[in-house]
Amino acid sequence: MKDLEVVAGNGLLHRRAFLTGGTAFAAAVTGYTLSETAAAQQLVDPPWSKGRGVAVQEYGTPSSFEKNVVRTLSNPRGDPRTAHGRTPHHLINGTFTPNGLHFVISHSGNPDIDPSQHRLAIHGLVRRPLVFTLDALSRYPMVSRMTFLECGGNSAPLFSNEPIQADIQAIHGLVSCSEWTGVMLSTLLDEAGIDPKAKWLIAEGADSLALSRSVPITKALDDAMVVLYQNGERIMPGNGYPMRLLLPGWEGNMNVKWLRRIKLVEQPAMSYYEARTYAPILPNGKAYQFYFLQEVKSFITHPSPGLRMSGPGFYEISGLAYSANGRIAKVMVSADGGRSWAQAALQAPVLPKAFTRFRAPWRWDGGPVVLQSRAWDEGGNVQPTRAEVIARRGQTAKPVTNPLGFPSQHYNGPTSWAVDASGEVRNVYA
Amino acid sequence: MKDLEVVAGNGLLHRRAFLTGGTAFAAAVTGYTLSETAAAQQLVDPPWSKGRGVAVQEYGTPSSFEKNVVRTLSNPRGDPRTAHGRTPHHLINGTFTPNGLHFVISHSGNPDIDPSQHRLAIHGLVRRPLVFTLDALSRYPMVSRMTFLECGGNSAPLFSNEPIQADIQAIHGLVSCSEWTGVMLSTLLDEAGIDPKAKWLIAEGADSLALSRSVPITKALDDAMVVLYQNGERIMPGNGYPMRLLLPGWEGNMNVKWLRRIKLVEQPAMSYYEARTYAPILPNGKAYQFYFLQEVKSFITHPSPGLRMSGPGFYEISGLAYSANGRIAKVMVSADGGRSWAQAALQAPVLPKAFTRFRAPWRWDGGPVVLQSRAWDEGGNVQPTRAEVIARRGQTAKPVTNPLGFPSQHYNGPTSWAVDASGEVRNVYA
Repeated sequence: MKDLEVVAGNGLLHRRAFLTGGTAFAAAVTGYTLSETAAAQQLVDPPWSKGRGVAVQEYGTPSSFEKNVVRTLSNPRGDPRTAHGRTPHHLINGTFTPNGLHFVISHSGNPDIDPSQHRLAIHGLVRRPLVFTLDALSRYPMVSRMTFLECGGNSAPLFSNEPIQADIQAIHGLVSCSEWTGVMLSTLLDEAGIDPKAKWLIAEGADSLALSRSVPITKALDDAMVVLYQNGERIMPGNGYPMRLLLPGWEGNMNVKWLRRIKLVEQPAMSYYEARTYAPILPNGKAYQFYFLQEVKSFITHPSPGLRMSGPGFYEISGLAYSANGRIAKVMVSADGGRSWAQAALQAPVLPKAFTRFRAPWRWDGGPVVLQSRAWDEGGNVQPTRAEVIARRGQTAKPVTNPLGFPSQHYNGPTSWAVDASGEVRNVYA
Repeated sequence: MKDLEVVAGNGLLHRRAFLTGGTAFAAAVTGYTLSETAAAQQLVDPPWSKGRGVAVQEYGTPSSFEKNVVRTLSNPRGDPRTAHGRTPHHLINGTFTPNGLHFVISHSGNPDIDPSQHRLAIHGLVRRPLVFTLDALSRYPMVSRMTFLECGGNSAPLFSNEPIQADIQAIHGLVSCSEWTGVMLSTLLDEAGIDPKAKWLIAEGADSLALSRSVPITKALDDAMVVLYQNGERIMPGNGYPMRLLLPGWEGNMNVKWLRRIKLVEQPAMSYYEARTYAPILPNGKAYQFYFLQEVKSFITHPSPGLRMSGPGFYEISGLAYSANGRIAKVMVSADGGRSWAQAALQAPVLPKAFTRFRAPWRWDGGPVVLQSRAWDEGGNVQPTRAEVIARRGQTAKPVTNPLGFPSQHYNGPTSWAVDASGEVRNVYA
């Protein structure tokens, strides 16, 4: 193991172990060293090597052995209330989220929109109102952008005064990352001609709720997009088919799905979600309102609750980091509850406002440890400690995970996973 | 239109039009300028805005209105012969291919592999043979890499002596691009310990064909991977679930799916695919064998056959470029069959051995034109003309699209789309 340098407590290794691992991993991981005969014995043909396989599908779907790799649903029958579908970050890997597993929150179900009938109107404080069909929008210059999208309520369970026992899907499942392709909103607003009095726009969806949110015109002219494609194909119905507003890095609810109207106005509309849901009361008695950015955050996906460790030895600690303020600059990982830290490797390319996969090599000695990560973005912002978050925003009693009027929005403190000697992983505060 | 500078024949505009488009697009595209009243009239509620929508799914699937956005199948019933599923590049957008639409070629169907029973053996000229379970592999350091994968026979129809009338899916549907996550093969080979006599490896799949290919050890130690995830989730069954070999930029057939064995040897095995299929006879009488790279190539996806142009005005010409030799350096686009050229914009980030989406603004005057693209890679390689390809490799009679023993492999010349005054687009040679 001499070429695996320990750089922090409880066995965290230098990230260059990825480059120089050499013969150090074998014994560390498995000891699957076999004679040539034994290796050959492993190749006895299983049933699927003995007969013809399954026909190629028109549209591929995951193996039936992956049937548990799905979103968890808060409202599986589509009853008349909000429905959440959460991303299983512990069961996937890489730097973005496949479309089938992108998180969804729909407040009145997913409208089944005929794209040939759908229209997007841009009106209000403009020189000339415009209405676009999908075909017309498709003729405009497009851009593709990888960006995360996070519900303001993601990670709300970590406001609880005691750590809830749940997996990462329940705790952090309301953030995902996709490549979005569409037209810059600035292009369309330039066409319409912005009246200088316009300081906000109201974006409205074609769902029966007609969900609407107010967006500062500065964001609209910065990097906002009207998105037509998600990870290469048309947007999923739950993510806004056939078009949605994308505000890279900003609170998910503002990225209006099934977009049908952009109205330029002088003042914010004080719509339901900005006046109520996203206006929780702070400990100082003021409402926390019109905060838009999903600030720098990270969490470890592997290991995490539900992924039992299979004995001492080498593991890769892996997770996701992201920030509305740009690129991730650094992620540190601790295996001793924050007393000592090792710098993680960042998967290239590191893109602004996108998931960055971090990885850190680790040799577990089999004893109890507490794993944490902490991220910095290129703006110099760092994840606050949980104590700092709570001091500013308060906390909730244990059973309350997402109460209106209580702190439940924009948690970006650390996540701590305790590993016990049996290899079980659970959520703790450390 | 004064801020849209024409830089090449038949209305190709400078790529900075993307930045300065301003009010130039509106009249150019649609003339959808309306009164405020007319804009409001467009917002009369359609049925899907009047009632509760559809429940959120555990695993999201595209809208039913996208039911034609599927792979075309050469063998839909899974008869005992090769089955192709081709990617509909004209119906998707962005810089990579969603998993449901990644091309598939399976010679004996897709084996339905139980991942807990699957093993990967590394043996032959190694110091210690190793056998890995999926769980064991998952403990190793991983990397994520966006890379294209192309069948050596992709674009074979362009060897025909007359242009076949088919869409881009039929012509170029055997190339796709994904983010692949897994373990570097060099890590595993370091563990096994390479005998200096080993110059090749034989990779074998767990399909009933036991498809095998020989790979130079130099590639194995360069950027080869044993892949466990595709675009974030477990590999699709048709793409090698639960693990495949990935040789970035190299002929698709060598990227052995359902990987179960890597045997290090002194000489190539002269297996079926390298001795027969991928050994076509050249005009000079020699076999074209052991050529591995999918060299620099590009094609225009929008517009392309099947996407009828809807009248004169502004359009974006968009397409894909890629090279086994690294990053795409430049793509030029012509609207006059190659007489004059405009430089296309390249979507960032431009990654090595990955799809690069190029885009060029174009004002169509409604007359007949011939669209082409031509790509350069960072190694200074450029797409050859079709005449150069044919001179070196020969051509086939019109009805023969993929004959063994005839030129049908590794076409990387240009693709030419003729647009007529009705807006119809078709394949031509120019």
